[in-house]
Amino acid sequence: MMRLLKMIAFLLFPVLLTAQHPITFFTKTEAADVKKSLAKYPLLTQSYNDIKKEVDAWAGKDIDVPFPKDPAGGYTHDKHKYNYTLIFNSGILYNLTGDIKYARLVRGVLLKYATLNPTLKNHPQATSSSPGRIFWQALNDANWLVYAGMAYDLVYNSLTAAERKVIEEGAFKPEVDFITKDLQTWFDLIHNHGVWACAGVGIVGIASGNREYVDMALYGTKKNGKSGFIALMDGLFSPDGYYTEGPYYTRYAILPFYLFATALDHARPSLKIFEYRNRILQKALMSGLQQTNLDGTFFALNDALKEKDYTSNELVTAVNTAWDIYGKDNGLMLVAKKQGRVVLNKGGVSIAAAITAAKTTSSFYPYRTVEYTIGSKGDEGGVSLLRSGKEKDLTTLIYKYSSHGLSHGHYDKLTYNLYDKGNEILTDYGAVRFIGIEQKYGGRYLPETKGYAAQTIAHNTIVVDEKSHFDGKESVAEQFHSEKLFSSISNPAVQVVAAKEENAYKGVKLQRTVYMIWLPEGRKLLADIFNTTSSEEHQYDLPFHYNGQLISTSVKYDPYTNRQEPLGKKNGYQFLWKEAEATIADSMVQLTFLNDRTYYTISSLVQGPAQVFFTRSGANDPNFNLRHEPAMIIRKKGMRQSFISLTEIHGNFDPVLEFSTSSYSSVKQIKWLQQDEQYSVAEIQVNDKKLIIAQLNKDFDSKKVHSIAGISWTGPFAVFYNGVKMN
Amino acid sequence: MMRLLKMIAFLLFPVLLTAQHPITFFTKTEAADVKKSLAKYPLLTQSYNDIKKEVDAWAGKDIDVPFPKDPAGGYTHDKHKYNYTLIFNSGILYNLTGDIKYARLVRGVLLKYATLNPTLKNHPQATSSSPGRIFWQALNDANWLVYAGMAYDLVYNSLTAAERKVIEEGAFKPEVDFITKDLQTWFDLIHNHGVWACAGVGIVGIASGNREYVDMALYGTKKNGKSGFIALMDGLFSPDGYYTEGPYYTRYAILPFYLFATALDHARPSLKIFEYRNRILQKALMSGLQQTNLDGTFFALNDALKEKDYTSNELVTAVNTAWDIYGKDNGLMLVAKKQGRVVLNKGGVSIAAAITAAKTTSSFYPYRTVEYTIGSKGDEGGVSLLRSGKEKDLTTLIYKYSSHGLSHGHYDKLTYNLYDKGNEILTDYGAVRFIGIEQKYGGRYLPETKGYAAQTIAHNTIVVDEKSHFDGKESVAEQFHSEKLFSSISNPAVQVVAAKEENAYKGVKLQRTVYMIWLPEGRKLLADIFNTTSSEEHQYDLPFHYNGQLISTSVKYDPYTNRQEPLGKKNGYQFLWKEAEATIADSMVQLTFLNDRTYYTISSLVQGPAQVFFTRSGANDPNFNLRHEPAMIIRKKGMRQSFISLTEIHGNFDPVLEFSTSSYSSVKQIKWLQQDEQYSVAEIQVNDKKLIIAQLNKDFDSKKVHSIAGISWTGPFAVFYNGVKMN
Repeated sequence: MMRLLKMIAFLLFPVLLTAQHPITFFTKTEAADVKKSLAKYPLLTQSYNDIKKEVDAWAGKDIDVPFPKDPAGGYTHDKHKYNYTLIFNSGILYNLTGDIKYARLVRGVLLKYATLNPTLKNHPQATSSSPGRIFWQALNDANWLVYAGMAYDLVYNSLTAAERKVIEEGAFKPEVDFITKDLQTWFDLIHNHGVWACAGVGIVGIASGNREYVDMALYGTKKNGKSGFIALMDGLFSPDGYYTEGPYYTRYAILPFYLFATALDHARPSLKIFEYRNRILQKALMSGLQQTNLDGTFFALNDALKEKDYTSNELVTAVNTAWDIYGKDNGLMLVAKKQGRVVLNKGGVSIAAAITAAKTTSSFYPYRTVEYTIGSKGDEGGVSLLRSGKEKDLTTLIYKYSSHGLSHGHYDKLTYNLYDKGNEILTDYGAVRFIGIEQKYGGRYLPETKGYAAQTIAHNTIVVDEKSHFDGKESVAEQFHSEKLFSSISNPAVQVVAAKEENAYKGVKLQRTVYMIWLPEGRKLLADIFNTTSSEEHQYDLPFHYNGQLISTSVKYDPYTNRQEPLGKKNGYQFLWKEAEATIADSMVQLTFLNDRTYYTISSLVQGPAQVFFTRSGANDPNFNLRHEPAMIIRKKGMRQSFISLTEIHGNFDPVLEFSTSSYSSVKQIKWLQQDEQYSVAEIQVNDKKLIIAQLNKDFDSKKVHSIAGISWTGPFAVFYNGVKMN
Repeated sequence: MMRLLKMIAFLLFPVLLTAQHPITFFTKTEAADVKKSLAKYPLLTQSYNDIKKEVDAWAGKDIDVPFPKDPAGGYTHDKHKYNYTLIFNSGILYNLTGDIKYARLVRGVLLKYATLNPTLKNHPQATSSSPGRIFWQALNDANWLVYAGMAYDLVYNSLTAAERKVIEEGAFKPEVDFITKDLQTWFDLIHNHGVWACAGVGIVGIASGNREYVDMALYGTKKNGKSGFIALMDGLFSPDGYYTEGPYYTRYAILPFYLFATALDHARPSLKIFEYRNRILQKALMSGLQQTNLDGTFFALNDALKEKDYTSNELVTAVNTAWDIYGKDNGLMLVAKKQGRVVLNKGGVSIAAAITAAKTTSSFYPYRTVEYTIGSKGDEGGVSLLRSGKEKDLTTLIYKYSSHGLSHGHYDKLTYNLYDKGNEILTDYGAVRFIGIEQKYGGRYLPETKGYAAQTIAHNTIVVDEKSHFDGKESVAEQFHSEKLFSSISNPAVQVVAAKEENAYKGVKLQRTVYMIWLPEGRKLLADIFNTTSSEEHQYDLPFHYNGQLISTSVKYDPYTNRQEPLGKKNGYQFLWKEAEATIADSMVQLTFLNDRTYYTISSLVQGPAQVFFTRSGANDPNFNLRHEPAMIIRKKGMRQSFISLTEIHGNFDPVLEFSTSSYSSVKQIKWLQQDEQYSVAEIQVNDKKLIIAQLNKDFDSKKVHSIAGISWTGPFAVFYNGVKMN
């Protein structure tokens, strides 16, 4: 609250908006420096040439500014999108070359928008609650404001006062009015759309010297600081930079944060925006990069498309700017190198220079085990990334005990995903969307995203009574979050995180402890103890969505070879074909699959009777939108249930030499030595050795000594291998 | 026949087998040269170090020679396989270092085999008609003979006469007797197994100075030249080097050809084996390499595993030897570089030296449009590879109008596959097999290979009345082959091949003409006119097995969303889930799919009524052996039917920039201007231009002038675009 008051205080002491241009993307001095460096560093030179080649193809030509008609992927959508990038780049070139033709290009296009925009009503393809005018959704209009605003600023000096007036009142005002008035609620929302909206209005404000715009952008339409850019910086990140919607959306939101912050840093330096909230923008970027796979793709938490990686344009700006503002960093340099291009500002110059000077750079981002809290105060659960091994042999377990993640959140409390050697092994479906493909519902999220991908059964966590967590209701899910109970991540031999979820289902408590264990002989084992408590009888489904070719299973199943039906009727179950099922009792379920050149075996103890289903996504998919991916689901019934599962990473398959090594799991038996409200103690036979995992299920005192089932330890957990304590 | 007589003539003039050792893998002089070069060329040095590191780990240790028990992937199988490579490499090291420990290693292992082999009966896991003794199948025993034979030769000089006797009589004789007597028919077969068998017996013969063995190897057990190595060189390749079983098996067979030829070149230089049949071994290798995808994987004709590429060990020997024997070649150098290792003989030295000296090498193999005949006389049909574009934008159409391809052949007359930008677009399933994985039936071919992958419906060619070609009978299929009618491949704008098949079905003639068209504006179109003729009514199914995400289709279909059943009951149909079906009439069927970043649209004209099925492999697969791959199948009924289909390669999808370009097909309409026994003339509307394809269906006189449907041309075909003749 103090922070908020301090911010509002700025309002009371008017700071003159500087009249110097350019001031948003870069300043005059900065542009002169960039110009001097253009020939010096190959990456910079190349980036400049690419932009120049693209813009030169249009300079002097009549550029179409069509009346809006098509959804994403269609002509008018793509043309408007292309136009704003084009004028932004042309504006940069004007400053770097002084060639008036680039300014003319920007002027010509903006004047056309000045004619078009006042005539626009809601887009004919608008289907969302936040319709756009130039585009089908307001979000894209906000993108347009960001880039058109910077383009205007970049050529401001070349325009006459009359031209400025026409552009400001014709091109910008209708759009700004539209999103701040017609869509006021949307503009003031704490959500990634809001970041773009504020950045758009704010940048136009700075470019046109419109104080009102800048203030709305910073503090919301009501200028009370409950909305706007500052509130977004407070509300969308946890104190350690975790972005509420997940890493895929970090990528998207980080760009307007950095672009508007850069403009503010020039126009209102006293805000010290890059220092705000203990450098929250630095933390946001770095946490986003930590949440990527070896190939740079973002981990698929919540709605996410798996092809997006840190070479995205959005990240180029953030990485270059962070390098400049927050200082050198090997990880950033690696990412910049993989991006293969830089922004034409001082950050871009500086990182291109560093890459030119560097003798060698690592091929691997400096990934590490890390835990992020969630929520603006960091008290809404979290996400732990347990990492084991390094470079190409890196294994990452992502354990999610989070809050919901706004409108892009999934109903997946206590879920985990496993990545190994750059491949996704235990998977999260991500989102069902073909972005930029008009034929697929204009590139929008498809109904199967909410219908399947967001539902609990699409994740590696327990579904009770075939209903999703919080009954699949966002409004309810947004009120709760899971809670971490304890964790220990400093010892690479045993990393552990325990968390609970007590609100996903009425009357059912879920508690899951996951271990990343690295045995002395090199084997990696993910161990997972999942306890459920209820005073009533329920059905518990625990899915393992795996990515690979089924090699063998210990389960004697009945395959549905001649006729297939879905696993269920609703809550995502209707999208899973039932390929086989089995009824088993008191045994260890094993499933070995092959991914790339490595074997993986899931071993899960079943006490009493259970069913096992082998499923594949793709049912009830009349428009061929889903991928067809396999899962094994273990179903138990009862009041209190305990699942203990191990996923072993083992062996090697060489299709060229036609050799397999260690293709069989070393997990031979799992049994409980103790399993009650207070303790879970399991003994796992790993070939001829015993692995013992002992944990508390409550009272996690780190000093307390326990002695049970013939073993003794201190604190909330202990792992023994071959009689030796590993942690 | 003259050739055969000449060969046999050699038998009549005894040539003394030289007593010098080594003589199989390399000679003494050659070894000395290799030794001198070891430190000079990085690739050679690395290859030497790799082998040395591997062998040094075993030198001086007791090496297990277990009693045979397990199938492929199991311990005893892999151990014996490992052993023969180990002793071969140890033998090489003995010659390159002079260190006796390497000779001792070989001696120790061979003496163990000398004890073991006389005790062996058929392997307990033997299931094939050619059982092995050390391994489950004789083929692997033949592999063992090849390597153990060379290993023996490599350390021959270090052994006492008594040791030699023990090894020759204990380790080799039982195996040679077994495969030349017990398995005489198999040994004498013209088949890839035969190549290994002959090479094994021949190399052991040369190593042990056993003339009888060498003669059997060269001319068959009856020494009449109807079998044996020479007959295999005659029988397995067409005059231009096409290997009867297809490129995947070229890879496998090429190694024993080159290994035994090398030994023969040293031991019986007068044979001039590398010159034999106009350098058939060079042609075999080069044709194998031409039949690979951009990433080096072999095209999936007949039984094939798609992960095998030209970096396979088998190809390293062949590439290095061909470089030495037949001279420098840029393609070979590129492949050697990608292989990343060389053989430690003079070919390896020479190519490693060339790679070291080369300033730059291309990243792309010099692929070209090429046609191969099939059969020892080149009169059993053929395969055409039509190529368009270059480097990473290469498109390859493989049109197969071949003979059956022995026991690994598929029932796929007149089928084609399409590769583009390194991706398989219109696919061939390949084989169902997990080589080297014990859990999957010991790594053997799985029943689904014959049940599904080899059946006609698994290919992109017509199935009549739901029966496979030749009713799926190998004995019948082996008697026939398709026939090329005409082709023209010299003009990159229009490449065309026409072929017919009159024996696959009684009373039905199949004739298919395929065009690879490169339009002036850069679009690539595969055009396909498939005519069937019969005097009776039949059902014709034309499948398109495509690889990608379905984006849109013009077909209004009924999807099987809640229940799926297979498309049929037998002949491979039982493995296809029917995902959707449609009844249509007189329209153009279009299906657009996305593969990687490119769109592909299949457009096919339907005259009269037809059914369309959307299927996916995976039904009736109780052991989870199949991949789940989509197809569209067009079904028509009638006597004479004409299918005309175009596959357009178009547009670009950029998931990072979220842009699509040209995501819609430019094919707007297809109609017949003429379609009868003599002519097929089609008009295709490509955006606002007309593409006309005119062809003869009989009388392919290249001089004859035709005038029909308002157009005139000379020869068997003509293609016009926008009124201009393209060919």
